[in-house]
Amino acid sequence: TNNFFLLAGPCAIEGEEMALRIAEKIVSITDKLNIPYVFKGSFKKANRSRIDSFTGIGDEKALKILRKVSETFDVPTVTDIHVNEDAAMAAEYVDVLQIPAFLVRQTDLVVAAAETGKVVNLKKGQFMSPEAMKHAVAKVTDTGNENVWITDRGTMFGYQDLIVDFRGIPTMKSYAPTVLDVTHSLQQPNQSSGVTGGRPELIGTMAKAGIAAGVDGLFIETHFDPKNAKSDGANMLDLSLLEGLLTKLVAIRKIVAEN
Amino acid sequence: TNNFFLLAGPCAIEGEEMALRIAEKIVSITDKLNIPYVFKGSFKKANRSRIDSFTGIGDEKALKILRKVSETFDVPTVTDIHVNEDAAMAAEYVDVLQIPAFLVRQTDLVVAAAETGKVVNLKKGQFMSPEAMKHAVAKVTDTGNENVWITDRGTMFGYQDLIVDFRGIPTMKSYAPTVLDVTHSLQQPNQSSGVTGGRPELIGTMAKAGIAAGVDGLFIETHFDPKNAKSDGANMLDLSLLEGLLTKLVAIRKIVAEN
Amino acid sequence: TNNFFLLAGPCAIEGEEMALRIAEKIVSITDKLNIPYVFKGSFKKANRSRIDSFTGIGDEKALKILRKVSETFDVPTVTDIHVNEDAAMAAEYVDVLQIPAFLVRQTDLVVAAAETGKVVNLKKGQFMSPEAMKHAVAKVTDTGNENVWITDRGTMFGYQDLIVDFRGIPTMKSYAPTVLDVTHSLQQPNQSSGVTGGRPELIGTMAKAGIAAGVDGLFIETHFDPKNAKSDGANMLDLSLLEGLLTKLVAIRKIVAEN
Amino acid sequence: TNNFFLLAGPCAIEGEEMALRIAEKIVSITDKLNIPYVFKGSFKKANRSRIDSFTGIGDEKALKILRKVSETFDVPTVTDIHVNEDAAMAAEYVDVLQIPAFLVRQTDLVVAAAETGKVVNLKKGQFMSPEAMKHAVAKVTDTGNENVWITDRGTMFGYQDLIVDFRGIPTMKSYAPTVLDVTHSLQQPNQSSGVTGGRPELIGTMAKAGIAAGVDGLFIETHFDPKNAKSDGANMLDLSLLEGLLTKLVAIRKIVAEN
Repeated sequence: TNNFFLLAGPCAIEGEEMALRIAEKIVSITDKLNIPYVFKGSFKKANRSRIDSFTGIGDEKALKILRKVSETFDVPTVTDIHVNEDAAMAAEYVDVLQIPAFLVRQTDLVVAAAETGKVVNLKKGQFMSPEAMKHAVAKVTDTGNENVWITDRGTMFGYQDLIVDFRGIPTMKSYAPTVLDVTHSLQQPNQSSGVTGGRPELIGTMAKAGIAAGVDGLFIETHFDPKNAKSDGANMLDLSLLEGLLTKLVAIRKIVAEN
Repeated sequence: TNNFFLLAGPCAIEGEEMALRIAEKIVSITDKLNIPYVFKGSFKKANRSRIDSFTGIGDEKALKILRKVSETFDVPTVTDIHVNEDAAMAAEYVDVLQIPAFLVRQTDLVVAAAETGKVVNLKKGQFMSPEAMKHAVAKVTDTGNENVWITDRGTMFGYQDLIVDFRGIPTMKSYAPTVLDVTHSLQQPNQSSGVTGGRPELIGTMAKAGIAAGVDGLFIETHFDPKNAKSDGANMLDLSLLEGLLTKLVAIRKIVAEN
Repeated sequence: TNNFFLLAGPCAIEGEEMALRIAEKIVSITDKLNIPYVFKGSFKKANRSRIDSFTGIGDEKALKILRKVSETFDVPTVTDIHVNEDAAMAAEYVDVLQIPAFLVRQTDLVVAAAETGKVVNLKKGQFMSPEAMKHAVAKVTDTGNENVWITDRGTMFGYQDLIVDFRGIPTMKSYAPTVLDVTHSLQQPNQSSGVTGGRPELIGTMAKAGIAAGVDGLFIETHFDPKNAKSDGANMLDLSLLEGLLTKLVAIRKIVAEN
Repeated sequence: TNNFFLLAGPCAIEGEEMALRIAEKIVSITDKLNIPYVFKGSFKKANRSRIDSFTGIGDEKALKILRKVSETFDVPTVTDIHVNEDAAMAAEYVDVLQIPAFLVRQTDLVVAAAETGKVVNLKKGQFMSPEAMKHAVAKVTDTGNENVWITDRGTMFGYQDLIVDFRGIPTMKSYAPTVLDVTHSLQQPNQSSGVTGGRPELIGTMAKAGIAAGVDGLFIETHFDPKNAKSDGANMLDLSLLEGLLTKLVAIRKIVAEN
């Protein structure tokens, strides 16, 4: 297939039933539309508050849910890792290890992910140019692991805004398959409230522009009930809107991909 | 028709024969593709060097060429104006008066253009937010002239770069029909040489993303021989590539426009 | 003297009595502190609302007030011009012609100012790099007029903020005497209200940093009653605070200027 | 004393003799000028190349050199940490733990540093607003550790430039003592070569502006021979210039600090 691929799911794994229900719904849509699908869920919140105690059991529990999703629906899964030790642990359960944007310059973490042999999905730092991702990709491929993707989630634009530079897509595609993270590139950081804002009505605009500009994949956080999601609800797509959007995107992709 | 419209032409009117040849070629393409077409040419270079003497004859000559293009091919024309007196003069020859981005905050100029009753095409200042264009549009409509367009040509991103914010397109469309100026939004200003740079290989990427994001029109400078154009050659599209690009854009538009 | 010079005054000339009172106060302070002083007042509001009728009498009246201030206190004056015709007219009344930031790329206007032989004060466009001011300065000096200053009023930083780049001060000083416009560089443009915001509590911080970084002059808008000034009140300095601030600045200047 | 404090040293600890020689020189200058001094040296390069093997011995060796500097000259020391485990280890040897800018949003790392009871020096992320540092400071103080500093090292300005926003200094001072990192704020990241550029001739300009704007401390990397330093040479100050610069800064500080 020459279609784009989709990374989608809830932000964090909130529980097995929720994960399976979301996966089931997305699988039914992507199967119909012939979109290769990767289920995404965070197994821990790295920047969790200091008060909540960290529990190894919580991590393993979430990773097991990711494995269960994978086995139940025969789809690959992706999760993000934050410290070097996460790499080997998560690699036992998922197919793609994602490096968060703030950490993509941490060589040790990137190399630890690369050495698992899994696909490494490098998020472009909000402080990096598309061209600078060449060096991040090389840190993966220098280990002998050629399975590397780049994901754009926007670039700092003043203090309280992120902007997606569509000129960077052809640049990054020359290094590795490139994904547009529609959800996080619509964030508005550094709001005085300490809560990151968002503009969910623009999800469709950004996704269509991304496919038209030639991205290989899209990342979209989606939820049956975005307003009640435990994190990132501000930029999540309501699952009931996903099929309509993807149908248009597949049609655009077809035009863009043909010569 | 529900198609997008196209503003295209050479940057400056270099001569009658050249203008007619370019117009003829574009008209033949846009007729075939059912794209409403507006011929664009600058009748003077506002920021011309101090040494070249300004000649009223030059201006009128260029405006007459614009009228001749209009009459020959039965297409409307657009030109940019720089001082208040230009408005009435140019309005005798063209259908759309364009306000340059640096001048869009000059109320007198905007009002002078509006009072001609012609379509006023307001270029978004590189220093303005999409939301701020609401006030510029109001300066036109407050005169009773409802014929107003907005054209985005990018926003300052550091000192030497412009970036197009596709989130702004739905915003600006809520004020007036919105055009993406593909050519000038690819400029890289403030280069140490004093010559504005560009990245012409990205014309297709930007045009496709713009149509997918829902713009009503596109502006593309094009030339039979961009490398030898007298100005702005760095970001012009070779005319031989125009039909192929527009064909894809019409197909994307069709998908985006349908419900 | 090796001191910095000061451009200060109200934003717009609101009336003769007000202008003379403000000038008298500033002259008494700058005389005491040996600061060369230039009285600043706008003789018209270029971007005035469309509804207010433009009156030639208003312009001339304001220019005559500027002349009266000059004669009364034996100080030079500066005003900003917006169209080519303003240059010769204003030059009959004032000593320094200021080119607004949005218009500094309008070659005709810069040349018209230069040809009066007066000092031309070029405000750096919010969309320009310090290095790009070299070309603007050359447009003045190419006419044979060597009396040219540069004034920095900040650079776009995202959509709704301006930032002063102190690295640019040595760069611009290599082209011409360089002034920091403390008042306008603290603006926050493109606010959704359509009214430019500000942070007046930072006037002292910026002025001190500017003098320490080596600027040749400062521009400060000041008023007996900023909250009731007809425009720009948000970033004006209360006149009662001027002497205390200038005293510190003179002391910093002395340290910076000595070898 | 009401003077500013100085964090200075080489970038990385290259060896004991070098560290002691640099410390001796800086101590002799800061003693004379009554500047509280903290010796800074990195005990490991976190983003070291993948090929160089990491050696625990190297880390401990560098930390012991830091302790030796401290004991020899009776000065506190600061080093940066990159993973949670570094915090307790480094705390045995140094007085101030510095959180790198890219990592300041990693709650675990900030808390691990805070829990040592040492001073925590939080570098402002290049992607953060001054206001957002309030939340980072709270992560330290919420552990009961009130010893926290903020260090500004510039903010992203387009892809390839950093800019220091002097308006942020009063803001950050309202949260914690604030340091200006002159060396790193002059970097120019994302250069196509993969090597970060710099503008060392601006060190004095930035340091003077920072003191004038009221910073509590300065960070300056310095070396007997910047061109041959193993890293960051592009923005290091030649040690022979340090005394002259600090002398001016102390004089400016005196003016700024008095009421």
